[in-house]
Amino acid sequence: MNKQVVLEKRPIEFPSQDTWSWSEAEIPNISDGEFLVKVKYISLDPAMRGWMNDQKSYVKPIELGEVMRAGGVGEVIQSRHERFAVGDFVCGLTGVQQYCLTEGKGFYHVDPKSVPLQTYLGLLGMPGFTAYFGLLDIGAPQEGETVLVSAAAGAVGSAVGQIAKIKGCRVVGVAGGAKKCDYVVNELGFDACVDYKNEDIYVEIKKHCPQGIDIYFDNVGGIILETALAQLNFKGRIPLCGAISQYNAASIKGPRNYLSLLVNSAKMEGFIVMNYSKRYPEAMAQLAAWYSEGRLKSNEHIEVGIDQFYSAFCKLFSGEKMGKMVLKVE
Amino acid sequence: MNKQVVLEKRPIEFPSQDTWSWSEAEIPNISDGEFLVKVKYISLDPAMRGWMNDQKSYVKPIELGEVMRAGGVGEVIQSRHERFAVGDFVCGLTGVQQYCLTEGKGFYHVDPKSVPLQTYLGLLGMPGFTAYFGLLDIGAPQEGETVLVSAAAGAVGSAVGQIAKIKGCRVVGVAGGAKKCDYVVNELGFDACVDYKNEDIYVEIKKHCPQGIDIYFDNVGGIILETALAQLNFKGRIPLCGAISQYNAASIKGPRNYLSLLVNSAKMEGFIVMNYSKRYPEAMAQLAAWYSEGRLKSNEHIEVGIDQFYSAFCKLFSGEKMGKMVLKVE
Repeated sequence: MNKQVVLEKRPIEFPSQDTWSWSEAEIPNISDGEFLVKVKYISLDPAMRGWMNDQKSYVKPIELGEVMRAGGVGEVIQSRHERFAVGDFVCGLTGVQQYCLTEGKGFYHVDPKSVPLQTYLGLLGMPGFTAYFGLLDIGAPQEGETVLVSAAAGAVGSAVGQIAKIKGCRVVGVAGGAKKCDYVVNELGFDACVDYKNEDIYVEIKKHCPQGIDIYFDNVGGIILETALAQLNFKGRIPLCGAISQYNAASIKGPRNYLSLLVNSAKMEGFIVMNYSKRYPEAMAQLAAWYSEGRLKSNEHIEVGIDQFYSAFCKLFSGEKMGKMVLKVE
Repeated sequence: MNKQVVLEKRPIEFPSQDTWSWSEAEIPNISDGEFLVKVKYISLDPAMRGWMNDQKSYVKPIELGEVMRAGGVGEVIQSRHERFAVGDFVCGLTGVQQYCLTEGKGFYHVDPKSVPLQTYLGLLGMPGFTAYFGLLDIGAPQEGETVLVSAAAGAVGSAVGQIAKIKGCRVVGVAGGAKKCDYVVNELGFDACVDYKNEDIYVEIKKHCPQGIDIYFDNVGGIILETALAQLNFKGRIPLCGAISQYNAASIKGPRNYLSLLVNSAKMEGFIVMNYSKRYPEAMAQLAAWYSEGRLKSNEHIEVGIDQFYSAFCKLFSGEKMGKMVLKVE
C-alpha cells in the first residue's frame, strides 16, 4: 500500500493537524512512459504553506483531495520510461507519499554514491539552487560588499551566506537563538550572526554592518526586512526569496519604510528558483565543486517516518530545526 | 531687496503656513567665480516635502533658517563666472527667492527662444528627465507591453505616459477627477485613464489592462501601488518615483501585497534623477526633439507672484492643478 498525505482543508492562519488526512492507496500500476519511485526522503519547505492557499501564484494551488505537493528523492523500482531505469536514483516533485508514479516531468538523476541522498534536497537541491541564483543573479555581490541574510541557519540562508563568503563579502546572518547563531558563525564561517530572539536587531545589525548593507537576502519579511531597508546602502539590492514571518498571517504587513528603495536608488526583486530550471546543471556543478572542496557545508534536519509529517511541518515555522528539514520515509 | 521664503519649522504632517517665514535680504554682491540670477520661474515639486524632514535621504535636509530649496529658471544679471555671462538664461537650484547668488554648481544654460522658459522646469527639466530615465532605464518598456502610470496628469506622469506611447506600449493613467482623466486621454493620448476619486480602481484598472500590468510607474504609493502589485505580470517592473499619498503621513503604510514581487519574479526599484545628471544632455535632446515633432506635449500650471508660494505648495497635494506647478516671480 501507498501511504499518502492529502490536503483536506485550506487553512487561514497556521494549519491545524486536520488540514491534512491520511490515505492508503494501492501502489499504482505503471503505463508506457511512466515510472514508479520508492520515495526515500521528502523535502519540507516553508513555500509549501503558500501552495495551500487558493490564490494566483507562481504554481497552481494544491487542490483539496490532492496528495500534498513536496519535493523528494527516491529510487526507481519500476519503469516503462526511456530515460529512467530501475535502480536509478531521482529527484523531483514526489509529493508526501511512499510511492510516486510519474511521467518524469521535472525529475532528474542524482548520484547517492558521491553525496548523501538527502543532500540533494538541501545544498545540492532546490534550497542550494535558490541561494545560488538569488544571491548571484539578483544580488550580484561584489568583493568587499556587506551581505545580510535572514533565516541564516536555514536551508537557503546557510547556503547564501557561505556563497557570499566565497565571493569575498562581509556576511552577517540573522537567526533565532544562541545555538543557531553560534553554528552560523563557527561552523558556516559567517562574520557575525544576530540573534533576533534575544538581541536588539537594529543595534546589532548596525554594529556588525558598519559600512551599511549592500545586499539583504530576505527569507522572512516583517521587522527584519524593515531593519534592513533602514540600513540599506545606495544601489542596495534585496533579493526577495520568502517571508516566513508572514506566511501564516491572515493579513500581511508591508514594509513601512519601503521608500528607502527610492532614496537609495535600491531595488527589491522577487525570484522563483523554477524559472532557472535550465541552469540547474550549472548550479549543481558549482555547488558540488565547492562542497567537495570543503568550502560549502550542508546540514539536514532529518525527521524519521512519514507519520511525522505534521510535527515536522510545524517545526519549519517554530524555529526548532537547523538546516534543511527532511522527512525520511521508512 | 531680495524676497525669500525661509524654512522656519519642521512639519510632522501637512505643513501649515507658519512652517515658512518671509525674509527681505539685501541683493547680494558677487565675488569672483559667482553670478547673480534674477529668478523668473520657480519649480514647485512634491519632493520638496521630503527635503523638509530631518532624516537621511538622497540630499541633505533643508536647514531651519535656510532659504526653501527649489529649482528655478532665470536670467544672469551680474557675473564674474567664466561660463555664465550677463544675459544668459539658466536653470538650477535657485531656491524660493527673487535673486540667487551662485557659483554655478548644477546650473546649466537654457534657450528661451526655442521653448517657453517655464517648460525647462517641466517637460524639458527635472520632471521630464525623471520620466525619461525612470521609464526607460528602470522600466525598460517593450513594444506591446502595458504601462500603468499614477498621477498621470502631473508633471512626471504625463511625460511617462507619452513616452511609453512613443515606445509602442498600451498606456493607462490614474488621475483624480473627470477633467484630468479627459485631459490625459484626449490631449495626451493615453489609451485610458482611471479616476481614482470616483471609480473602483481595482475594477477599472483590470478592465483597461486586460493583459495585466508590465510596468507600473509609481508616483503615489498607497492603495494604487497595492492595486498595481495585485495585477502585476510575470517579470513586472515598478519604477519607484514617489509616494505623494504618503508624504504628509506621520506613519507610512507599506504595500501589504509586496510579495506579488516574489511570486511574479518582479522588481520594485527606486531612482533619483540627480544620479543621471551626466546624461541630462541626452534626455534634453531627445525630449526636445519629440516636443518639436509634436509627439510630446507640455503643460504647466502657473501661479503668479512669489507671494503665492504657500497656496501653490498646497495645490501640489490637493490635486487642484494639472501638469507642472510653477511659480512665476514678478
